[in-house]
Formats: sequence, structure tokens, C-alpha cells
Amino acid sequence: MEERLQKQLAFALEIDKEKNIFRQTHLSGHGRNENDAEHAWHMAIMAYLLREYANEPVDIAKVMLMCLIHDIVEIDAGDTYAYDAENLKTQKAREDAAKERIFSLLPEEQKEELIALFDEFEAFETPESKYAHAMDNLQPILLNNSNGGADWKEHQVTAEQVYGRQSKTKLGSERLFEVVDQVIRDNIAKGQIRK
Amino acid sequence: MEERLQKQLAFALEIDKEKNIFRQTHLSGHGRNENDAEHAWHMAIMAYLLREYANEPVDIAKVMLMCLIHDIVEIDAGDTYAYDAENLKTQKAREDAAKERIFSLLPEEQKEELIALFDEFEAFETPESKYAHAMDNLQPILLNNSNGGADWKEHQVTAEQVYGRQSKTKLGSERLFEVVDQVIRDNIAKGQIRK
Repeated sequence: MEERLQKQLAFALEIDKEKNIFRQTHLSGHGRNENDAEHAWHMAIMAYLLREYANEPVDIAKVMLMCLIHDIVEIDAGDTYAYDAENLKTQKAREDAAKERIFSLLPEEQKEELIALFDEFEAFETPESKYAHAMDNLQPILLNNSNGGADWKEHQVTAEQVYGRQSKTKLGSERLFEVVDQVIRDNIAKGQIRK
Repeated sequence: MEERLQKQLAFALEIDKEKNIFRQTHLSGHGRNENDAEHAWHMAIMAYLLREYANEPVDIAKVMLMCLIHDIVEIDAGDTYAYDAENLKTQKAREDAAKERIFSLLPEEQKEELIALFDEFEAFETPESKYAHAMDNLQPILLNNSNGGADWKEHQVTAEQVYGRQSKTKLGSERLFEVVDQVIRDNIAKGQIRK
């Protein structure tokens, strides 16, 4: 087999490991913890169906691919919980090393392409990145809300923490931030999110 | 909240259940069974990275979306194992009922759009559908081969059965079928696939 195809298939096999990286979010119906691959799949479909609510026009194919690959680095770096201040400090260094190792499995120009897309997501500057981040935030809110806010309660998350993270949602979609804002208010009122 | 957005979010929550539909394929590293959402995520990324091997030019955004949604009906209909002759007989009826129920959660025009895309995948006529089917077949082969062909061995699958299914791969990608063909030959030689 030619080296190019060998490298592409090696990468395809490597990313299978993302299915073993579990998040703090639980599946609907008070299910088990969700993993990164499931989260990315869910985000990509939501991005497509909700694209009319993006603040700015987006290249939806680019957004979907961004959603699908944005957590691949966690194969090495692990999932860093959004409200884990200690691990958030080292997150960038861990993810940079992972990015180099994993995407280097690909042929050079595909490595560069996916790293550029990953970096664009992280930089939070383009319409696609802002909208993809809105999905990254909305998707777990949808699940957590369906479970009565149990994930917030378990981690004793505060309103300030939730709003700190969800401020990004607003920059990607004003309309979807209104939805999120209502969910947060409801969960503060119910005592699932600490004031 | 307006009805349109309510429906879109209801659908987004409903498809979370796809993460509980488990397949016969096992994750690499002799892991647990894979679920449909993980399989779809994996297929969509592979479709993007391997698109140069499609027999005909494809609209890759369409292929990716097709990959992402092609198993949603299994939320109701369950996974039908590729070599389970008995359940294959009732598969279409079960999946048609599921398709109607689940996609009806969406606003009408999005329901029609996704059903059309699902039907296009099933009809196996367009370049996008043929290439998406090649991914549907290649992805589990990649995992199964990485596990030494254990899934074939467990189900005592025959070469005739594997080739019957993989004939579709050839129609989507001659080059990727060559890869699959080599894997099958290796696994027949090793006794993992019955002659």
C-alpha cells in the first residue's frame, strides 16, 4: 500500500481512541457519562440543523468538520472539565503536544489542514469558530437540562462559572444564548446551580 | 420559545439515544462494543480524509451529513447485524416506521430534507451514497482488523458473506475495496473468516 494511504488509515485507526475519553456530562435519561466522539457527533448534527441562528453566515461544512475534530487532542491530553481551574492551567500545553503527535500521523498537507482547523476553533475569532463554540456549549446544556441539572449539582457549579463559559455562546448565537440563559435561570431557581 | 426552535431542540435531544444503540463491532484495543453515534462520527471524518479515493467526485459536505444521520432510525429499529439473515428481512419496515416518527420531530422542511438524505443513502444510486456506503463498510473493517478479526471469528462469518457486503465498497471506491480485499484475504488465511 502506498505511504499516503497507510498514513491516512493509521490516523483513522488512532482516532478510534477518542471513544474512550469520557466527559463529565451524562447522557439523557440519567445515562452514563458521554464520550468525546459522541459529543462531537452530536455537535456536528446540531450545528447543521441550527445554522439559521448563527450570528453571522457560516461555511457549515467547515463548522461540521471543526466540531468533529475539535476534541481529538484529548486522546492524549484527556478531557478537562470546564470548571476545573487547576487542570485548565495546563490544558494548552497538554493539548499542543497531543496535537503535534496525533495529526502527524496524517500526510503532511492533511496534518497542516486539520491543525489549522483545530487552531481556528481554539482562537475563537472566525464566525465558524464562534458558532462551533456555541454548539460545544449548548450540546451539554441540552443533556444536563434534560437530566434536571444533575451535572451542575454534582459539581456544585456556580452561576458565575456557568455564565463565564456561556458568554462564548452569545458570540456565536444570540438566539441560542437566550435559550441557554433561560435554562440557567431555571436551574438557579431550582437550586441545581449555586447562586 | 417559538415552535420551530422547540422542535429543533426536541429532535436534537431525541437523537442522543443513538449513543445507546450498540453494534457488533468492537473498538480497537479489544475494547467494548461500538455504538451508532461513534460509528457515524468515525465514518464522517474518514469520508472527509479519504475523499480522493471516491470513484466519482462527491459533495463531501453532503456525504458527511449522510454519514452522521444514516443510523438515526436505529434508535427505534435497533442495529441489524450485517450477517443476521432473519432480522434483515424485517429491517426495512422497522426502519421506515422509525424514520417517520423521529424525523417528524423536526420542522417540516428539515424533516423532508433529512428523510430525503436518508433515502438517498439507502437507495445506493448517487456518488455520495455509494461513497458513504464504502465508509459504512470500511470503518468496521478497520476496527475488526485491528483486533485480529475477532468479530468475524465470534460470529463465524464466511468469506461469501463478507464479500457479499463488501461488493458495495467497490462501487464507492475501487481503491479502498482493494484495501478491504487484502484484509479479507489475510483474515481468511488466518482462519478468522470461514472459507
